[in-house]
Amino acid sequence: MRKELFKHEITILRDTFGRLLRRHAETNLLKLIGKTHPADLAVVFRHFNDDEQVQVFSLMQGVDHTLEFLVELDDTIIEKLLNVENPDRIVDLIQNASTNDQSYILGILEESQAKSVIDLLKKEEQEEIEEIMGYPEDSAGAMMATDVFTLYQETTCGEALRTLQDQQDAEMVFYLYITNEDNSLVGVASLRTLATTPANTMLKDLMVRRVHSVRPETDQEDVAQIVAQYNYLAVPVVDGHDQLLGIVTVDDVVDVIREEATEDFLQMAGAGKDREILLKSSWENAKVRLPWLFASWIGGVVAASVIGSYEHMLESIIALAAFIPVIIGMGGNIGTQSSTIIVRGMATGRIEVGNELRILIKELRVGLILGVLYGVMLGLFANLRFMDTDPMLGLVVGLSITFSMLIAVAVGSFTPLILRKLDIDPAVATGPFVTTSIDILGVLLYFVIAGLLLNI
Amino acid sequence: MRKELFKHEITILRDTFGRLLRRHAETNLLKLIGKTHPADLAVVFRHFNDDEQVQVFSLMQGVDHTLEFLVELDDTIIEKLLNVENPDRIVDLIQNASTNDQSYILGILEESQAKSVIDLLKKEEQEEIEEIMGYPEDSAGAMMATDVFTLYQETTCGEALRTLQDQQDAEMVFYLYITNEDNSLVGVASLRTLATTPANTMLKDLMVRRVHSVRPETDQEDVAQIVAQYNYLAVPVVDGHDQLLGIVTVDDVVDVIREEATEDFLQMAGAGKDREILLKSSWENAKVRLPWLFASWIGGVVAASVIGSYEHMLESIIALAAFIPVIIGMGGNIGTQSSTIIVRGMATGRIEVGNELRILIKELRVGLILGVLYGVMLGLFANLRFMDTDPMLGLVVGLSITFSMLIAVAVGSFTPLILRKLDIDPAVATGPFVTTSIDILGVLLYFVIAGLLLNI
Repeated sequence: MRKELFKHEITILRDTFGRLLRRHAETNLLKLIGKTHPADLAVVFRHFNDDEQVQVFSLMQGVDHTLEFLVELDDTIIEKLLNVENPDRIVDLIQNASTNDQSYILGILEESQAKSVIDLLKKEEQEEIEEIMGYPEDSAGAMMATDVFTLYQETTCGEALRTLQDQQDAEMVFYLYITNEDNSLVGVASLRTLATTPANTMLKDLMVRRVHSVRPETDQEDVAQIVAQYNYLAVPVVDGHDQLLGIVTVDDVVDVIREEATEDFLQMAGAGKDREILLKSSWENAKVRLPWLFASWIGGVVAASVIGSYEHMLESIIALAAFIPVIIGMGGNIGTQSSTIIVRGMATGRIEVGNELRILIKELRVGLILGVLYGVMLGLFANLRFMDTDPMLGLVVGLSITFSMLIAVAVGSFTPLILRKLDIDPAVATGPFVTTSIDILGVLLYFVIAGLLLNI
Repeated sequence: MRKELFKHEITILRDTFGRLLRRHAETNLLKLIGKTHPADLAVVFRHFNDDEQVQVFSLMQGVDHTLEFLVELDDTIIEKLLNVENPDRIVDLIQNASTNDQSYILGILEESQAKSVIDLLKKEEQEEIEEIMGYPEDSAGAMMATDVFTLYQETTCGEALRTLQDQQDAEMVFYLYITNEDNSLVGVASLRTLATTPANTMLKDLMVRRVHSVRPETDQEDVAQIVAQYNYLAVPVVDGHDQLLGIVTVDDVVDVIREEATEDFLQMAGAGKDREILLKSSWENAKVRLPWLFASWIGGVVAASVIGSYEHMLESIIALAAFIPVIIGMGGNIGTQSSTIIVRGMATGRIEVGNELRILIKELRVGLILGVLYGVMLGLFANLRFMDTDPMLGLVVGLSITFSMLIAVAVGSFTPLILRKLDIDPAVATGPFVTTSIDILGVLLYFVIAGLLLNI
């Protein structure tokens, strides 16, 4: 019910914008922009055509929350809007932003445009940004906020609260990070503890000393794993000497989890990993999907050659051809089931080093149960449907289904496990590789079994 | 690097537990349990065998953080441990927990066991739990925490902070919810604002009046969408009269996002939606996967009948059989690409009502580009590989690939869009339906084209 309300509000907003845009009612548009939450504006903005997007964005020249709006947009749209923009305006937009928002925006721009913008920034900002942009993409360093509020451990609660009042810039303060005389991170306290402890207590006497921290090079997936596992609101990022470099906050982790899931989805389907594929042109879209289909094309060509070399067998028993689709289809489907269960199990931490063999054996047992069941069913069907051909056809078809499903389960579970051992993202190669190999192996097996059992 | 460290720590912990368990060193085990973070303990616990799990859990009789540990476990394991437990012990475990943790645990137990436990609880607790358990599964009501700290709007900041000191139970306080004289939710303030505003300011003068709230019936996916979109740390749950019933916190939303992604993954692969499938026995596992494979079996049987009815055509040109795998394989793969892109686009809000047609047309264009490309490539291959058969074979194969890929793209994109219109979860039926229909349509199309173009 609430769902409809929520969707409904967005639709009304979109229609209102549409009407005002058609009338070029700039004053009213500006009022509406000012009243709309930046996140809602970003959702509605996707529905505008290119001209409308440019029109709205140029109206937002002096609007306060333009940057909050911008960072909620898809990269493709940000790129389109800002690459044609005057570098001065971009500097205006980002100069009061946090360093991670700044480097995020700059990372999307074309190199020359980014350079012009950086040149216009203040010296110390330039250095900070270059440092952040130096961290690998998808690392904790690239996503951390650097404006973190720290306190010395020998401060009292009362002083700490007073200091906090002057810190308007610091990112989402809910944890207070506490340092020693070397400026190393030694503890953490929640704002709540601070507010509910007698004012003269020293921070070092109330802080939690066991702080989970990450390094700037830590992959964002691992950061997400830590935040999810321990229910944190933020994780500190420290260097080799425990100096606090920044924090990664849970709102960014939520985005990471969704983005990584989307990438894994697309990769498992052999459709690249560009989350914004829907915003790309048909040509770009086709270009991303082309190589993965090539795997399947190769598989098909090899399967065709295998079948071609058994022409004599097909000549005697034409009915053999009828069961090619079901043999590779059932294999492909159970193989996809296995690989999805395994890939997802690894992503959610259910499959750890040490229990792989047990899981592999269990998958094989599942493959055997289902393979025998569907083998029997298809064997009976084959004998009934093609009663006038070789009476062994049912046995051939049934055995082929059983073995093809067993092989599919083995390939589907083994491939992602091996890929992870080789430090290759299991989501990448699993999908296309599994279906392609099952196309080939299934067909080959079928004709080998036919050759053994039929009188040809 | 840090990743390895993190995994490494878990491995060490697991080995230490293993050693102590083999030696039955109960005192040391208890010490180790006390020192281990409940979330880490839950990770390690999965690796224990059944006996070890029972041994460790019975040692945790008097340990403080047993409940925190328990709620981090998989449902299957909780069920196994608690269904054989004395109801008294379960009451001990949950009686100081938050209502949502209580109802979560009770929801996992067998009905009779849950009833015995509820009967032992205090009257008012019983009522609260029964209310929460009355909300639909996967709704905001079922996942909300009910111990929320609210303040009357005419309280001063100073008083508010003092009141806060006595609230040890309330869930993760970072937002303070503010009510009017009717007890309706009228605003929200962050703890930080409270701590940094002069003590005599009234809450109604500093609070944010625009509060996004949800209803207890709201689906957890929509709650997650709101939290992700607005970067909230919590969302209030209110009834029809704006009375605050509870809050859903971001840590639970993080879990929801991961769980929903896992369910979607499994469903798209036609492997049910049980996130804990890896923990199930082979039989249960096979039972979950069986029906989805049945779709593919039916598809295969129909395809076999189609091919069977074209036996005369195959008799003249045996080579036709060789291209059956590649035609359904390429179709299946591009269809899976399309349906994955569309299903994921809907889950992440990129596809909204209104832009479906544009997306469908774009997909068809992509299908045409890739279909023509691979059609030409396969047509050439067919003529080269089977030079001695009908020279039109290449054209037949090429056209069939093109059309089968076009149809696959259409089925793959149209199916999830239609399912959503019919209010059926698009992830559920898309996978098996798309591959099955492509198996049938691809083969049919192939023989129809062959019939038209070949001289048979």
